[in-house]
Amino acid sequence: MNAVDIREVGPRDGLQIEEPIPIEAKLAFIDALVATGVRRIEATSFVSPRAIPALADAEAVAAQLDRWPGVEFSALVAGLGGVRRALTAGVHRLEYVVSASDGHSRANVGRDSAESIALIDPIAEQVHAVGGQLEVIIAIAFDCPFDGRTPPERVAAIAARAVASGADSLAVADTVGTASPVRTAEVIDRVRAAAPDTELGIHLHNTRGQGLANAWAAYEHGVRRFDSAAGGLGGCPFAPGASGNIATEELAYSFDDGGIETGIDIDRALDAARLISRLLGKPVDSNLLTAGGRLRPSNAASQ
Amino acid sequence: MNAVDIREVGPRDGLQIEEPIPIEAKLAFIDALVATGVRRIEATSFVSPRAIPALADAEAVAAQLDRWPGVEFSALVAGLGGVRRALTAGVHRLEYVVSASDGHSRANVGRDSAESIALIDPIAEQVHAVGGQLEVIIAIAFDCPFDGRTPPERVAAIAARAVASGADSLAVADTVGTASPVRTAEVIDRVRAAAPDTELGIHLHNTRGQGLANAWAAYEHGVRRFDSAAGGLGGCPFAPGASGNIATEELAYSFDDGGIETGIDIDRALDAARLISRLLGKPVDSNLLTAGGRLRPSNAASQ
Repeated sequence: MNAVDIREVGPRDGLQIEEPIPIEAKLAFIDALVATGVRRIEATSFVSPRAIPALADAEAVAAQLDRWPGVEFSALVAGLGGVRRALTAGVHRLEYVVSASDGHSRANVGRDSAESIALIDPIAEQVHAVGGQLEVIIAIAFDCPFDGRTPPERVAAIAARAVASGADSLAVADTVGTASPVRTAEVIDRVRAAAPDTELGIHLHNTRGQGLANAWAAYEHGVRRFDSAAGGLGGCPFAPGASGNIATEELAYSFDDGGIETGIDIDRALDAARLISRLLGKPVDSNLLTAGGRLRPSNAASQ
Repeated sequence: MNAVDIREVGPRDGLQIEEPIPIEAKLAFIDALVATGVRRIEATSFVSPRAIPALADAEAVAAQLDRWPGVEFSALVAGLGGVRRALTAGVHRLEYVVSASDGHSRANVGRDSAESIALIDPIAEQVHAVGGQLEVIIAIAFDCPFDGRTPPERVAAIAARAVASGADSLAVADTVGTASPVRTAEVIDRVRAAAPDTELGIHLHNTRGQGLANAWAAYEHGVRRFDSAAGGLGGCPFAPGASGNIATEELAYSFDDGGIETGIDIDRALDAARLISRLLGKPVDSNLLTAGGRLRPSNAASQ
């Protein structure tokens, strides 16, 4: 069967660069996301509230997640402190981000890439001690805003090391939205070769308009797990005003229109995008939303 | 060698739904497009000036095209009257559009699809009589806003008939921007099977965010000729405010970043997008332009 597994990251990656919104608004957003049918949601991150004020309410959000028992919620962490906070808050599915470049790693977490990689072992140990699951996301898998192009073999080496250190799944992230289909396919092929038995996802941004093309290239090269955010939420700290994550409703359309199952109701996904646009008080970046959704032919009796 | 051949359609498909702009502005736009390195430009259309007031100056534009001797200019026509006007104006490379659905064909040109197809023979005869070249563009190759889904076998049958009637090349057009990668690949495969010896291009709109994903799917299925418009110009008459053609600068980035030659300088393409935005007095729809173009890493000595 042809199917993909979409993880909604709007509540985390989508909101992290926005002004903080009330927790009631976040819970309404999560409720709208659950109504789309999506079954994996990255709900928040346990990082420094000074660095990311919009997600300073991570514990409060986590305390509400048992409202939606059918959904797998996860949270992002950047180090051991975050892991402890997340596990204490009852979130046992964690994404730990490792930057593939030193420049980005230092800017992001104040450590070089090797130091971040060395933390995978103790993080995996803590997560597995409570029966949790750890995904390692390799950020800057294509280009670094400081160091330039990331060698694909470096991404593959990090992937192999992450698996050896206990990662239960992997993802590669085009953090600054520079990838194109050819390079997406190359990185995917190398990571799959380096970690053939581990589930691999991809996290794409649409900063340069390439997001869905890269998603399709990744699909063609065997990827079935995709991150996206309702309404294409999330910007790029290195390109103010630029587009954010690939939009969930457009990603779902891309597969659904071709008969590939997503589990997501596109009309409900558009509702979620409209809701978060209203809650943030600004337009979101979704061509599908602007177009009014699917085409509804006016003469076709059965459609 | 990996290369694609991009045809810039901004001056025709991009401008046709805009308010008319002065011919000097159009010529400045064409000049900026030529400076990108693109070597095929659809300069205008010879259609009813009442239907498309923005292109009522087709003859005046055509009279200026010998300013740029290295460029292949073409024009779109919708019937025999347009063919006569174009040939008289000295434009010998013509695109003739046939809608694959009756609903769209009647709305667009007041004829059903079969009547439009029957005109390919006499149009090809007139074009070839002056040594010109005719491309048949099959519009509504995926979905019709009136009649619903277009059967791919119908598109293939029109392609075979067009070749038998004298078409020198073919293109399929996602006129309302509904296609997805799976369906793009299916239509391309069928048309290539029905017309294996004829050059095939694709004309994509980004109405639902799928344009570049479809371009990549088409490339993977053998297509090397692509239409696009600077800045993603051109809207959709069936979805007011929606996105238009795929943006030339984003399409070029998509290939160029992966080592596929386009002949287009992306920085110059961004300049052309900025120029037409200024000339039209409104923003264009280009994520690459919003992001400021390519990433320029700050620490990388050689970049």
